Amino acid sequence: MIAVLKPSATKEQIDSLTAWLEERGLAVHVSKGETYTVLGLIGDTSKIDTELLGSLEMIDSVKRISEPFKNANRKFHPDDSVIEVGNLKIGGHDFQIIAGPCSVESHDQILSIAKSVHASGASILRGGAFKPRTSPYDFQGMRADGIDLLLEAKKQTGMPIVTEIMNANHLPMFEQVDIIQVGARNMQNFELLKELGMIRKPILLKRGLANTLQELLMSAEYIMAGGNRNIILCERGIRTFETFTRNTLDLSAIPLLRELTHLPVAVDPSHATGTARLVLPMAMAAAAAGAHGVMIEVHNDPAKALCDGAQSLTPEQFAEVSEKVRRIREVITS
Amino acid sequence: MIAVLKPSATKEQIDSLTAWLEERGLAVHVSKGETYTVLGLIGDTSKIDTELLGSLEMIDSVKRISEPFKNANRKFHPDDSVIEVGNLKIGGHDFQIIAGPCSVESHDQILSIAKSVHASGASILRGGAFKPRTSPYDFQGMRADGIDLLLEAKKQTGMPIVTEIMNANHLPMFEQVDIIQVGARNMQNFELLKELGMIRKPILLKRGLANTLQELLMSAEYIMAGGNRNIILCERGIRTFETFTRNTLDLSAIPLLRELTHLPVAVDPSHATGTARLVLPMAMAAAAAGAHGVMIEVHNDPAKALCDGAQSLTPEQFAEVSEKVRRIREVITS
Amino acid sequence: MIAVLKPSATKEQIDSLTAWLEERGLAVHVSKGETYTVLGLIGDTSKIDTELLGSLEMIDSVKRISEPFKNANRKFHPDDSVIEVGNLKIGGHDFQIIAGPCSVESHDQILSIAKSVHASGASILRGGAFKPRTSPYDFQGMRADGIDLLLEAKKQTGMPIVTEIMNANHLPMFEQVDIIQVGARNMQNFELLKELGMIRKPILLKRGLANTLQELLMSAEYIMAGGNRNIILCERGIRTFETFTRNTLDLSAIPLLRELTHLPVAVDPSHATGTARLVLPMAMAAAAAGAHGVMIEVHNDPAKALCDGAQSLTPEQFAEVSEKVRRIREVITS
Amino acid sequence: MIAVLKPSATKEQIDSLTAWLEERGLAVHVSKGETYTVLGLIGDTSKIDTELLGSLEMIDSVKRISEPFKNANRKFHPDDSVIEVGNLKIGGHDFQIIAGPCSVESHDQILSIAKSVHASGASILRGGAFKPRTSPYDFQGMRADGIDLLLEAKKQTGMPIVTEIMNANHLPMFEQVDIIQVGARNMQNFELLKELGMIRKPILLKRGLANTLQELLMSAEYIMAGGNRNIILCERGIRTFETFTRNTLDLSAIPLLRELTHLPVAVDPSHATGTARLVLPMAMAAAAAGAHGVMIEVHNDPAKALCDGAQSLTPEQFAEVSEKVRRIREVITS
Repeated sequence: MIAVLKPSATKEQIDSLTAWLEERGLAVHVSKGETYTVLGLIGDTSKIDTELLGSLEMIDSVKRISEPFKNANRKFHPDDSVIEVGNLKIGGHDFQIIAGPCSVESHDQILSIAKSVHASGASILRGGAFKPRTSPYDFQGMRADGIDLLLEAKKQTGMPIVTEIMNANHLPMFEQVDIIQVGARNMQNFELLKELGMIRKPILLKRGLANTLQELLMSAEYIMAGGNRNIILCERGIRTFETFTRNTLDLSAIPLLRELTHLPVAVDPSHATGTARLVLPMAMAAAAAGAHGVMIEVHNDPAKALCDGAQSLTPEQFAEVSEKVRRIREVITS
Repeated sequence: MIAVLKPSATKEQIDSLTAWLEERGLAVHVSKGETYTVLGLIGDTSKIDTELLGSLEMIDSVKRISEPFKNANRKFHPDDSVIEVGNLKIGGHDFQIIAGPCSVESHDQILSIAKSVHASGASILRGGAFKPRTSPYDFQGMRADGIDLLLEAKKQTGMPIVTEIMNANHLPMFEQVDIIQVGARNMQNFELLKELGMIRKPILLKRGLANTLQELLMSAEYIMAGGNRNIILCERGIRTFETFTRNTLDLSAIPLLRELTHLPVAVDPSHATGTARLVLPMAMAAAAAGAHGVMIEVHNDPAKALCDGAQSLTPEQFAEVSEKVRRIREVITS
Repeated sequence: MIAVLKPSATKEQIDSLTAWLEERGLAVHVSKGETYTVLGLIGDTSKIDTELLGSLEMIDSVKRISEPFKNANRKFHPDDSVIEVGNLKIGGHDFQIIAGPCSVESHDQILSIAKSVHASGASILRGGAFKPRTSPYDFQGMRADGIDLLLEAKKQTGMPIVTEIMNANHLPMFEQVDIIQVGARNMQNFELLKELGMIRKPILLKRGLANTLQELLMSAEYIMAGGNRNIILCERGIRTFETFTRNTLDLSAIPLLRELTHLPVAVDPSHATGTARLVLPMAMAAAAAGAHGVMIEVHNDPAKALCDGAQSLTPEQFAEVSEKVRRIREVITS
Repeated sequence: MIAVLKPSATKEQIDSLTAWLEERGLAVHVSKGETYTVLGLIGDTSKIDTELLGSLEMIDSVKRISEPFKNANRKFHPDDSVIEVGNLKIGGHDFQIIAGPCSVESHDQILSIAKSVHASGASILRGGAFKPRTSPYDFQGMRADGIDLLLEAKKQTGMPIVTEIMNANHLPMFEQVDIIQVGARNMQNFELLKELGMIRKPILLKRGLANTLQELLMSAEYIMAGGNRNIILCERGIRTFETFTRNTLDLSAIPLLRELTHLPVAVDPSHATGTARLVLPMAMAAAAAGAHGVMIEVHNDPAKALCDGAQSLTPEQFAEVSEKVRRIREVITS
């Protein structure tokens, strides 16, 4: 860590700061420029709060050189983490397609979609039982009943299931769920993250709409600090000024995260774009950029499900996505 | 609500959609343009999900005319809500200055700051006991002990206290807290909001870093839908590309929120800017823009509290803020 | 166009507005809801300024249904535009790789890079002669001499060249340039766009860092309104809060632009990401998302060119990009 | 300037880099940490391109300590610059209210507004003659005729005038204009800035919609590098995800700019918010935050000027703004 001192910093201030840092076990290396003095802090700086340090009167700016995440850091774990989900793997050379409806709505709906996407190449079933909705007046999901229906679909198709948790108190209901999803709005619900660190189930951690990649990795670190190392990161679009798409899918996050961390990286093009027509090209682009998985919303019968999500594909459209993504993967892995 | 149909929409599609909407109790008014047909939906449209409706093949776009928030809506409650906090009021013509340290650190610290800010014009004491930190390795607050110290400071100064909750399971600890704060990162923690709707204590609801004003009002609506109408909204900066400030304080939120809702609006210039030097001008600007309160971080002894927050003022600086804000209020209210 | 009136709008106001709109050749269709009245404006609304209309006291909001761009609109020109550049084509089924250095620096540099990228699959040579730099103290480019060197490289390799213009007064120097680039910072330099509408040379129009896709299309419309229909749009990243990348490459812009317009869409992953390591995955992703071209920065000798751009590849790295992009294209076009 | 080297940097690389930097007149101070080596560059680093330096294989990151702007830098010019405009001054203790219509539309319109705002406390007249419009089909302003009408209003009221330039070739038409405005879209039209550096007239430089404060100061530096030191900076809102306001007015820019530079800072609340109702509170807030001037749009007769801008006030509303701003200034200056 480097601290740049203001030209106005007095010798007393510098000595006092140096003493304080040394008390915390750091070696301090002083380097004087023409107008600025720079302190190099050597040792385990992960406990030093850069923002607090930067607030001192004498400090011009602080720069962390080593990343504040350790467990998630590729520097300390150079090999790709491969997460086991039932008989499947995700991460490293293993790529999976996760598909299913936005919300679980009925027995027939989830069974029908599950069988259809399974036949077209999906290997993991998704479906919302607890739904985070902006409005208290919107449908909040089938909750426990939705999880039961997902488990029934898992039984009939053999596919592992992923579904979102919104409250650590609900954890007992998730006992047979294969992957627990943390939604974008809960990425910094630190109390929830801590609870998920106590279990050993795989966690699909979605990036918050306004969160940096470093913050995403720090949230993974919250879970890993508790001992749960089974984390799949998921890019799902960030909030920008552009209004044609619901969010802006940040595909450069894929190669960047793969460089910074050993954890697998999935992409959800459905929620990011909010438009079914964009799912095919964005799923292909995500695969081409090196994602370890894509997560696609599929609904069953557009005639009946009049108000299904804008981002959902029909099973036929999903089959095309699945096939095209498979072919992009061939280019990537050859 | 208005739904614009695509030129390609067939008569069958329009009839089917119209029937579906009428089933939901809405009257549908069809208006044909040269290339587009527009449906006007009349009645209680708050249950219709615009995003889902917009996803239909036949739909070009959907526009909600009436706001989806009801309890928070000024149209239905034209008079300002005035929230009672102990013997104080906030909202309408009542303005309050909330001040205190970022984190409660010790008995002496909180008592010393509380007495000092009380003497300089603060009427409500703030102080973090549970601290949401980006890193699991940073100080997470004194938790229950911190609340006890705040209550001691309340006893000695008579000031009501406000402190942040991060987990609904902690509610029993907040029984004697006067205002419960929901932090920016939990603004869309809907499970927490629902629990806070069940109590009747005032809630200080901070705007999320990437949340629109409508989303802030929808989160207030979550609490109000449960029956708790004692909400104070708080603007604390949004995330933008500018890097000189930690966040960009959106002061236009004050007059906009005052127009949209009857709830009081406070501003936290300390967290928004992340720099003590900006707190004075931004607190004055917030008061000039019509805020019902400002929330200011103050620390006691910079020499001892070496690593206090960059956004914290000394008691002397706070006294100046308090005096200048008071004088701006005179201009506003005269 | 739809105008939603406020509940407070009086009959006199509505009549006066209707009369004013009818004077402008529009038919007005009035539709009354329970609380709101909606005016449907039928006819050529492209001359009506929505922002000005929306500013009227009686108006709640205005929504344009038909897009305000005509010449660029795919609705009126359903077939892909294919732009001819020398013997090459870009657009429709024709994909081109544009490569070259950030700045033209010397005869040897540009010749060496040109030959190298030509051998590896690039078909168009890029190179900056006039350089827009944030600081007046940074290198501003070789200007006219740079263009001469590009023309020499064109002569020796047969590749058409593209280079940026910053001032309409410089147009005479661009007479033998094949494609004139408008940089992101000049995307809304309307005076320059008008001048480029007067010529018939292909224009590569880069999206501004904070510009919506509709604004990009309106800038294309400025050029097309003058009669020049030879426009290649170029996505190059937008400004967001993320700081790991210089900008956030918005690849969903590719399928969206292809839907909205008939003009070809290229992508510049080098400038968007600002990091050479990200160019390969982002170029592949751009091709997978359906771009008609990619624009890649290449420098020659990293040992000599000590301070070449962070976003530049070596010729060897470029050869890999070129090969991988070619293979992605095979998946796309098969 | 500080350059942090990657752990993989070899001694040869470091020596070669050090030699290269020393050739450029810099002293290099090497400081070795446990895993990272840090180079402190001492001397005139304004000529070093941080982005290019950061692109080197061996470099982890680069941090500029001294600001890259010199002429605009308060460190080198501690006293406030006070710009003379006719008999008026702006900057330091001198505050001015600039008012007038968005566009000059007719002799009667501009004369009527000019007289009215002059009577209510405006000291400088604004009015657009050349209008940057997103659409080529929107009204582009009265151009030269508009300037003539502004000059007529100046003659009759004695108020200096400010109006926007879009093309350096138009400079001869601006000979009698008192302040030349550079609009947000041209803030990085470097060719235009260079031309404005050649004259000595005051320039009102608006911040671009997606430009940082440092970029704004670098654009001021472009003008000052040419010798023109008469610059008034103007905050007018930045682009964010919030859609209730057209842009987000960044009032923290005022105290920050006043700290970084000696140049005066004005604020345009009309364009920023796009809503007349927000102009009064935002103008008051701007004054409270320490602005040296506010720029307010006023239109004359809403009944006649049916489609005047949403952001424009009536003369009566302006009179209230002017009076309230005056009273806020009293608090500031007392």
